[in-house]
Amino acid sequence: MSETIEDFYAVIPAGGIGSRLWPLSRADAPKFLHDLTGSGHSLLRDTWDRLEPLTGPDRIAVVTGRAHRAAVEAELPGIADLNVFLESEPRESAAAIGLAAAILHRREPDVIVGSFSADHVIRSTRVFEFAVRDAVEVAREGYICTIGITPTEPAIGFGYIKKGPELVVEGAREAALVESFVEKPDLDTAKAYLADRGYLWNAGMFIAKASVLLDEIAANEPELHAGLLELAEAWDDRDRRGPAVDRIWPRLKKIAIDYAVAEPAARRGHLAVVPGHFDWDDVGDFASLTKLINNGRKNDLAVLGPNARVLTDGASGILVSQTSRVISLVGVQDIVVVDTPDALLVTTVEHAQRVKGVVESLKLTGRGDVL
Amino acid sequence: MSETIEDFYAVIPAGGIGSRLWPLSRADAPKFLHDLTGSGHSLLRDTWDRLEPLTGPDRIAVVTGRAHRAAVEAELPGIADLNVFLESEPRESAAAIGLAAAILHRREPDVIVGSFSADHVIRSTRVFEFAVRDAVEVAREGYICTIGITPTEPAIGFGYIKKGPELVVEGAREAALVESFVEKPDLDTAKAYLADRGYLWNAGMFIAKASVLLDEIAANEPELHAGLLELAEAWDDRDRRGPAVDRIWPRLKKIAIDYAVAEPAARRGHLAVVPGHFDWDDVGDFASLTKLINNGRKNDLAVLGPNARVLTDGASGILVSQTSRVISLVGVQDIVVVDTPDALLVTTVEHAQRVKGVVESLKLTGRGDVL
Repeated sequence: MSETIEDFYAVIPAGGIGSRLWPLSRADAPKFLHDLTGSGHSLLRDTWDRLEPLTGPDRIAVVTGRAHRAAVEAELPGIADLNVFLESEPRESAAAIGLAAAILHRREPDVIVGSFSADHVIRSTRVFEFAVRDAVEVAREGYICTIGITPTEPAIGFGYIKKGPELVVEGAREAALVESFVEKPDLDTAKAYLADRGYLWNAGMFIAKASVLLDEIAANEPELHAGLLELAEAWDDRDRRGPAVDRIWPRLKKIAIDYAVAEPAARRGHLAVVPGHFDWDDVGDFASLTKLINNGRKNDLAVLGPNARVLTDGASGILVSQTSRVISLVGVQDIVVVDTPDALLVTTVEHAQRVKGVVESLKLTGRGDVL
Repeated sequence: MSETIEDFYAVIPAGGIGSRLWPLSRADAPKFLHDLTGSGHSLLRDTWDRLEPLTGPDRIAVVTGRAHRAAVEAELPGIADLNVFLESEPRESAAAIGLAAAILHRREPDVIVGSFSADHVIRSTRVFEFAVRDAVEVAREGYICTIGITPTEPAIGFGYIKKGPELVVEGAREAALVESFVEKPDLDTAKAYLADRGYLWNAGMFIAKASVLLDEIAANEPELHAGLLELAEAWDDRDRRGPAVDRIWPRLKKIAIDYAVAEPAARRGHLAVVPGHFDWDDVGDFASLTKLINNGRKNDLAVLGPNARVLTDGASGILVSQTSRVISLVGVQDIVVVDTPDALLVTTVEHAQRVKGVVESLKLTGRGDVL
């Protein structure tokens, strides 16, 4: 179990800000740099620690913005310089993961890459490892393999993967073709999915030979593919990398890997899925963060913040305290209070999804200083 | 109407902190120093401005703590030094008003004094003036006269005055004896009081000859009375005042004027009431502050704070902003948010009364630095 997978490389795209977690997450302190679980480590570091037994410390790459380089290196002191892929600006997941695949493919033509979000929470590390090892075996067969999480409730906040015919692959306990991807459902549909057992949560994990992934991009987004190859060709030449990034990166199409790779691959029968029987959460908003910290217990108040000076009386929900202020919550149920030095948010678990709209409004009204 | 009342002196006890308005009101920034109405002036200054047409600027005394001297004098640049009566520590309203009465009685034996809280809100200034003039006429007859506010709703947050037989006094439009004082009622009782029309809100205003007030204190609290006379005797001697305050003041009984004067006087038929047909609010907690600022409109968000940077989406209630932070309220109804540099309160209009308990807890848990 503790052996690393020789030809495997993990890629961690660390790009998203996590707007629905504003004002905790923001441009200069994105979600992946926060400790949202009380583990004592950032989500990025937790992701690294989860992958390291599978790859060893020298085969994990992080794709992140130039602005986050110092923070990422501080979180991951073990990361090698050649494993930090810096974007000059955000260009969505197909460009980020595609860039990593292109660079790694040049360095090592037979490499299998797996991409794992920097800001998701998984606690069952060993079960996660099993699933990745299975997915790598499926990827060896030429499939792009995703890991779909076995649903434990009728969640409406996630996209779903509809399983197709079973796939028998040596060394993989369980695998299937992906029939299709399904957008976030309403509650009744989600209940039906849960009962059906043929639907898994889309956790955005993709494992494939780098060559297969690049071929899929080439088939669907040829210009993007060409740009990525050009970048990769210049990448390991110190003198050429910077100019190439400045020239090519800003022109690359902004598109999610789901649309550039996963959905078309599924339609062509190139996409497989391995079920992940582990806990997983994308901690997309304060509702899911509250649930995560409270372990699903209602009527508890989750408190996040090492220096919280809190006095509550009949309060439940979540309090994030990033200041040294005394905070008193009285008679407020399912409340969300996020107290930061320059911004304060008060909402409810029920309305947590609307925080993204606040961020949009702040941009529009010239108050981007707190984003 | 604009003539002052020659033998009348107004006394403003400015002592209470207003614990239920924490963390807006606190020891070093008590309620009476705040602008809670958006008038641009503190409640203390509004009180002064309301009384000045009745007394002139030289006949308004303020009884306050030594710690508030500078703030009071800054708010009231017109106040004469001899009209500032400083307490060495808080000793409740009977001592505060009694001290003023004793000092003024020594200076001017026939003076009629009227005491008016520093932190109540009255907007109908002219109607208020009518009531005070009537009360002074009743006081001339030897009564202690209160002004009872005509209820406009079945309020459960105020004490009530039950009217007794009508009193005919020359120069006063309307007056009655007080039959009794009634504690804060429950809602059904309050509704019955409203329908009955024989009950008025107790606004804590008392108008009487200083000699009559002192006699009433003497009858009920002889030790307090003796201490007050001793203090008054030394008061206007600069050399003797300080030592007398230090020696006598801390030993005076802590008792509200309601118990030391008003209730016993009512039982003996010495207490009269003049109905006040004006708006009045003691702004006791954030529920009443919300109502006051919103003028009773539901579904509005009252915002107090000159530098408020607020972004709301489906929020109602009250926001007090004393910092320059961006504050976002999303989907929270009847919420109370008070944002100050060192303390944050989040509660609801419904639970606003419980804030006092928070203040007690903060004292007990050693977090008095924010009180």
